[in-house]
Amino acid sequence: MASDSTIDTPDADRVYLFDTTLRDGQQTRGVDFTVADKAAIARALDQLGIDYIEGGWPGANPTDDRFFAEPPKMENARIVAFGMTRRPGRSAENDPGLAGILDARVPAVCLVGKTWDFHVDVALEIERDENVAMVRDSIARAVTVGREAMFDCEHFFDGFKANPDYALECAEAAYKSGARWVVLCDTNGGTLPHEIEAIVATVAARVPGTHLGIHCHNDTGNAVANSLAAIRAGARQVQGTINGLGERCGNADMMAIIPNLVVKMGMTTNVGADKLTQLTSVSRMLDERLNRSSDPHRAYVGAAAFAHKGGLHVSAVQKDPKTYEHVEPGIVGNQRHILVSDQAGRSNILARFAEIGVEIDPKHPKIQRLVDEVKEKEFLGYSYDSAEASFELLARRLIQGVPEFFTIERWRVMDERRFNARGDLVIESEATATLTVGGTAHHEVAVGNGPVNALDTAIRKALTPKFPAIQTMRLIDYKVRILPPARDGDGTDATTRVMIESEDETGTTWRTVGVSPNIIDASIAALSDAITWKLLRAGAAVPKTDA
Amino acid sequence: MASDSTIDTPDADRVYLFDTTLRDGQQTRGVDFTVADKAAIARALDQLGIDYIEGGWPGANPTDDRFFAEPPKMENARIVAFGMTRRPGRSAENDPGLAGILDARVPAVCLVGKTWDFHVDVALEIERDENVAMVRDSIARAVTVGREAMFDCEHFFDGFKANPDYALECAEAAYKSGARWVVLCDTNGGTLPHEIEAIVATVAARVPGTHLGIHCHNDTGNAVANSLAAIRAGARQVQGTINGLGERCGNADMMAIIPNLVVKMGMTTNVGADKLTQLTSVSRMLDERLNRSSDPHRAYVGAAAFAHKGGLHVSAVQKDPKTYEHVEPGIVGNQRHILVSDQAGRSNILARFAEIGVEIDPKHPKIQRLVDEVKEKEFLGYSYDSAEASFELLARRLIQGVPEFFTIERWRVMDERRFNARGDLVIESEATATLTVGGTAHHEVAVGNGPVNALDTAIRKALTPKFPAIQTMRLIDYKVRILPPARDGDGTDATTRVMIESEDETGTTWRTVGVSPNIIDASIAALSDAITWKLLRAGAAVPKTDA
Repeated sequence: MASDSTIDTPDADRVYLFDTTLRDGQQTRGVDFTVADKAAIARALDQLGIDYIEGGWPGANPTDDRFFAEPPKMENARIVAFGMTRRPGRSAENDPGLAGILDARVPAVCLVGKTWDFHVDVALEIERDENVAMVRDSIARAVTVGREAMFDCEHFFDGFKANPDYALECAEAAYKSGARWVVLCDTNGGTLPHEIEAIVATVAARVPGTHLGIHCHNDTGNAVANSLAAIRAGARQVQGTINGLGERCGNADMMAIIPNLVVKMGMTTNVGADKLTQLTSVSRMLDERLNRSSDPHRAYVGAAAFAHKGGLHVSAVQKDPKTYEHVEPGIVGNQRHILVSDQAGRSNILARFAEIGVEIDPKHPKIQRLVDEVKEKEFLGYSYDSAEASFELLARRLIQGVPEFFTIERWRVMDERRFNARGDLVIESEATATLTVGGTAHHEVAVGNGPVNALDTAIRKALTPKFPAIQTMRLIDYKVRILPPARDGDGTDATTRVMIESEDETGTTWRTVGVSPNIIDASIAALSDAITWKLLRAGAAVPKTDA
Repeated sequence: MASDSTIDTPDADRVYLFDTTLRDGQQTRGVDFTVADKAAIARALDQLGIDYIEGGWPGANPTDDRFFAEPPKMENARIVAFGMTRRPGRSAENDPGLAGILDARVPAVCLVGKTWDFHVDVALEIERDENVAMVRDSIARAVTVGREAMFDCEHFFDGFKANPDYALECAEAAYKSGARWVVLCDTNGGTLPHEIEAIVATVAARVPGTHLGIHCHNDTGNAVANSLAAIRAGARQVQGTINGLGERCGNADMMAIIPNLVVKMGMTTNVGADKLTQLTSVSRMLDERLNRSSDPHRAYVGAAAFAHKGGLHVSAVQKDPKTYEHVEPGIVGNQRHILVSDQAGRSNILARFAEIGVEIDPKHPKIQRLVDEVKEKEFLGYSYDSAEASFELLARRLIQGVPEFFTIERWRVMDERRFNARGDLVIESEATATLTVGGTAHHEVAVGNGPVNALDTAIRKALTPKFPAIQTMRLIDYKVRILPPARDGDGTDATTRVMIESEDETGTTWRTVGVSPNIIDASIAALSDAITWKLLRAGAAVPKTDA
């Protein structure tokens, strides 16, 4: 039956990881992968140790066609082409859709078919026997042409609850036709963990657990638990996506499944301890590709997953991290963070100093002043726990002083939309800025594609001759938040908080914040901090006053 | 022992809901509730049917002190004051911290104490017997002064795994001293569902399930499943927060727990079918209070929880929603959405028209053009699935035309930071705009706290005389996204997408989008759509050309 000889002597605890970010994850609102995106993500998953990478659906859209025409070379992972079983009334040999999937130059295919009688009756409107034949024929065809064949049992758990005999008949048909994997899908996401465990255990009496896979959705908030429950019941392939990407409430989150299986449950996968440390960077990579903010609270890999805020927790964690951490963050490539906020006591601030490498006597008289200043600025709208570079400058200014590399004296920016003399519509932003550097005034003008961009360009024109280090600096993210008027206040105007993220040629990134009722002013404040931090880091010298 | 007589004849399936948004949720990065926030949230939870509302920690900060000095009146819920057991070496009668908690004018208190020997040894550095005495004395004191007393067993599951006898001794000490509830806390969040179920079943042999509570964290992605597992093992109080708010990876999400218990598991709570429909609005209310974007993928209540994107799913859902929905969205106050995106086929577009009330013949020749136009605009950076009002305008313009209420001919905005004649620092934005309304040109100037605000004000000055309907319109949210250069493109500049959300006097909100390399231009495009949509809805007439 099976084409993979390793299951002749199965390692009972070997779990195979199947990632469907590039297929099921692509269904998500706002997600569209290019071919380059898919290849890069596939390579990262291969490096991580994923066994199967579902690359997409050949024939469904041009991007997937191009991906499968020239799939990226994998070191270990097998790329999988997804699609449907043959259509009703056609033979498997003579179905163009199926042929397209089997033409893909990849070792494995995964075909989805109905296993819930309700869907066969209402959605497909065909005979139940014809549906079973579609499953049988399509899997047999895939095996004949030499693919590792898998069958996705759509809506399996709803189907099993409604008509267990029919659901099992469909699953078994795939197994008996040579499917290496029969994947039980909780397509609507409505099944609970204890139900999954019981049903999978029942199925495993007909299709061995070594051939069973599980594919869950998060509509009840249980996708991860459901996946683990299936493994406990004997299934040995688990499907999921990076960061739980997927429509509605998402697919099962691989970033939680992998460490839970490997570290907590002692299962064997192709993600060994060394590869596991890539987990956090794989998670961030996907969010960067999709240009979305990372969820800081994501289990294991979120920026805040090991972040400690309250004073009591921080003291205990510093004594022994096991007091408040369930695993050591480094095993998944993550970090411990001590957050600064207006709940910060002295221990938080001291821990933050240690993290940024500032040596300070715990009894330094200015620490309390720093705590108070953080509280006050946060009341005004600053947020330091996502602007570490601004916090560092605030702290250094107070404790040891920061060189005054430059002063932005005044600026003006004009944005205009008008028709030019030729009758063309033009939109221009032009900025002038006056800076003092080393006692000399510099007055520059620049254009840009927006007011902040124009000002940034003018400021750099003024600074780059004296500070070549900022040439390699670029703005990579820009976030605006309109804050309500000061809480418990008297209705003064809303204020704007701008956070920017900068990057330099070494790939180092740093975040700064600016707050003002005026968005341009807030942006310039954040930018000024970003430049100052870079100059500090580069060891720049304050220029001597020109004679 | 127990002070609550209803447990004499317990309803075996009655589960008590305990919300700790205002206490454990407050630990989250970026979260700071005012007293007004706390009162409003408490009232919403009371209306929803929550049994216990943990309001905070009297003595820990001024906001909590003020909250407990004058707690809001509840219709059904009991407000709970949180705090620690008495300190080592003090008596319960003579501990100022404990006294502060017991002084709070609320019916219930919840005291946290150690149950993991490791913490007693390393974090507290006291004798193990002293810790047990602290538990016993503090609970007894609370009962003596007439509070409903609860004990939070901190790190219970880690403690039970390390030293089950000691953990049980602490839990039992609380029960025997009169605690109504003994709450087992997975404080580090590292326990898996099957472990929770087994351990809670063991504890229930010593402390009856009717007195056991569960408090989980989401560090492994299993907080909801862990909570349900504890209920299956006999616990009858479950703790969580709105939207899973909490530090690190969050607390257990009440928005998933409640429907799972009530709809899926058939348990009885004080959240009946009618109150359950408030669930989605409670979730959105918290995010608004915290000024954070809602997670569209949140189970049950997320904006995308019942959103269908792919063409095949949409066809099936329209035949019968049960094909792809595990519950009917209305039961939790949510809605089905058909998303428009470049994956949209004809069926998506038609479904969207139905949703916005546009009558159209499915065979209308322009539908394909609309599908193509959406694809093209999304390639340029537009995103219609979060800008329904802009989609509606796009569709109406194509199918039936939209009146040309006004044209923005040209605009100019100047932002300046300078010192005025008195030597004060001023930051000003001044905008001029030229609009054509009913054949007449209007040229207005205005100042604002930023370029978009100034332009918006100038535009309204020009429009309000002819269109009084826009007077009640205001901008309530403004989001900027810098998009990378066109994918697979040749490196042309990044483009900016601005999404704005507007609101009018009826509380109706609508979202529009604008895309341009220039942020001001993108903002004006989004604003122009917002105004046009409002005028369309208000049934405004295009002004006749002034003679």
